[in-house]
Amino acid sequence: MTKVVQSALRPKERNEKRAALINIGTVIFTQKGFSITSLDEIVAIAEVPKGSFYYYFKSKDDYAMEVIKNYGIYFSNKLQRILNNTNKSPLERLKNFTQEAQKGVERYNFKRGCLIGNLGQEMASLEENFRVELLNVFTDWRTQVKNCIDLAKLAGEIKTKVDSTDLSNFFWCAWEGAVLCAKLELSTQPMKTVGKLFISELLQPVNKN
Amino acid sequence: MTKVVQSALRPKERNEKRAALINIGTVIFTQKGFSITSLDEIVAIAEVPKGSFYYYFKSKDDYAMEVIKNYGIYFSNKLQRILNNTNKSPLERLKNFTQEAQKGVERYNFKRGCLIGNLGQEMASLEENFRVELLNVFTDWRTQVKNCIDLAKLAGEIKTKVDSTDLSNFFWCAWEGAVLCAKLELSTQPMKTVGKLFISELLQPVNKN
Repeated sequence: MTKVVQSALRPKERNEKRAALINIGTVIFTQKGFSITSLDEIVAIAEVPKGSFYYYFKSKDDYAMEVIKNYGIYFSNKLQRILNNTNKSPLERLKNFTQEAQKGVERYNFKRGCLIGNLGQEMASLEENFRVELLNVFTDWRTQVKNCIDLAKLAGEIKTKVDSTDLSNFFWCAWEGAVLCAKLELSTQPMKTVGKLFISELLQPVNKN
Repeated sequence: MTKVVQSALRPKERNEKRAALINIGTVIFTQKGFSITSLDEIVAIAEVPKGSFYYYFKSKDDYAMEVIKNYGIYFSNKLQRILNNTNKSPLERLKNFTQEAQKGVERYNFKRGCLIGNLGQEMASLEENFRVELLNVFTDWRTQVKNCIDLAKLAGEIKTKVDSTDLSNFFWCAWEGAVLCAKLELSTQPMKTVGKLFISELLQPVNKN
């Protein structure tokens, strides 16, 4: 396969190869970040000749932008699935998200973090268009959690009088930090503490059970 | 200077050169992280011939451990200065810390983050002894904030009934996340939101002014 000239592949195969490259980037960038990851590493895993990489993407930067967009869509869909699940109350949906995220971090042995957290830390050495794209993704997450908090308020589930946008922005800061701390401690305890106290102290459920 | 054989330097000069190398590492690692930073870059800024680097440090890893320790001491002293300032109440000291940190992030145009945050994100590609050392540093910060929260409770300044260790651990997750988000937004707003809501909702001051 590595010897196949990529342009000779059928459109379906080309799309699959491109998608595979993006998926590989998502895995590697959430583990190691962008700057340290070499194209050699990516093409070796994807079994694509290095020269053919440029058949799919203009540059490593162009590739990384696609990886960020892809991660943004994947995570946005995941949030939508959890936070719009009408089988549960809005507060239960938020709890569910924090629980699913803990399972995810454990599943990958605390090796994979959040792509936004990883690339955000590298910001000083990344191009401005990365920052804008990462912020776009993050803004979508904030909006989704803000909307869910509004629903919990409307349903009379929580007592907080704090503005929902502030609560959501606070949540995402604390949550990104919790994922970082989980990697540092090799434990989900920081995510447990943040999830629990965010709900009990910031949202203040009417029914404490 | 670059041509001087380092072993020919006097002990005072040697110590100064070693300290300069550590300071350079602190600046670069808080901006770019560890993995992407090359020794070439460090020795060029320090004006030390690359071969002489090994006169001061066994390896890049050994060097990075010294940088982490040095950052730990620097930041620990800064926290002690602010959180043990008996001219202010314990709660005022915590507020002061968050305000000073905002000024620091602005001063460096949102380019420098927290060394623990940056290296913590790289954890998957770092050696286990890095993780242990970063966690040691972080544990010291958590203990200092925990002690200050205990003092605020003792002084009757805050109403929270939540365990001080949990509050401090929560604070540091949220704060690391806030520093990350400040870099992403090029704004201190996330740090303002986290500082404000942590105090009003988690600590719950008796006197709200």
